[in-house]
Amino acid sequence: MDASPTAGCPIERALRVLDGKWSVLIIRDLLGGPKRFTELRTSLGMGSPKTLTERLRILEHQGILTRTVYAEVPPRVVYELTERGQSFRAVLEAMAAWGDRDLYELAA
Amino acid sequence: MDASPTAGCPIERALRVLDGKWSVLIIRDLLGGPKRFTELRTSLGMGSPKTLTERLRILEHQGILTRTVYAEVPPRVVYELTERGQSFRAVLEAMAAWGDRDLYELAA
Repeated sequence: MDASPTAGCPIERALRVLDGKWSVLIIRDLLGGPKRFTELRTSLGMGSPKTLTERLRILEHQGILTRTVYAEVPPRVVYELTERGQSFRAVLEAMAAWGDRDLYELAA
Repeated sequence: MDASPTAGCPIERALRVLDGKWSVLIIRDLLGGPKRFTELRTSLGMGSPKTLTERLRILEHQGILTRTVYAEVPPRVVYELTERGQSFRAVLEAMAAWGDRDLYELAA
């Protein structure tokens, strides 16, 4: 990608995070507040825990969310958006408005 | 996807179109005006014409762009955004603002 003429484009930078729909949906769900792994898995309706684990690691590495382990029995793991993750709300709102207004027939 | 509790979510509908970064970048480039296949391929820095053909067909099917063939020698094929494609500008602007403000270090 870095060799392309558009490598410096902010949209391309955004797309590096938005790679695949799961990242966007994870951020959407965490905008409602911190969540545990199982809560995310349920709210996303995801079958495979492996895919969710992988996406969460990538988003953590990209500075979009934090992962906190509470030393309880059993250990509690909580995911929470960083400031950068929170600021994605504006993109989601634009997406939701577009999806709502212009794509209603794709929902069928 | 339709069995998930979020199937009716407008963000999910938007993501059905934003599947993969190429769709977003094609729309970005066509917001500057209609373009021919080779112009798009160059501006996107895409190696494979097959991938571009495939993405353009999907976007045409989704009502995001139109494909017009002019009966010249050689035939000229022009891609142009529909009204629905044009209205994606707001999403791109939100993405660009986010990519610009919050992701500058990912560009390195």
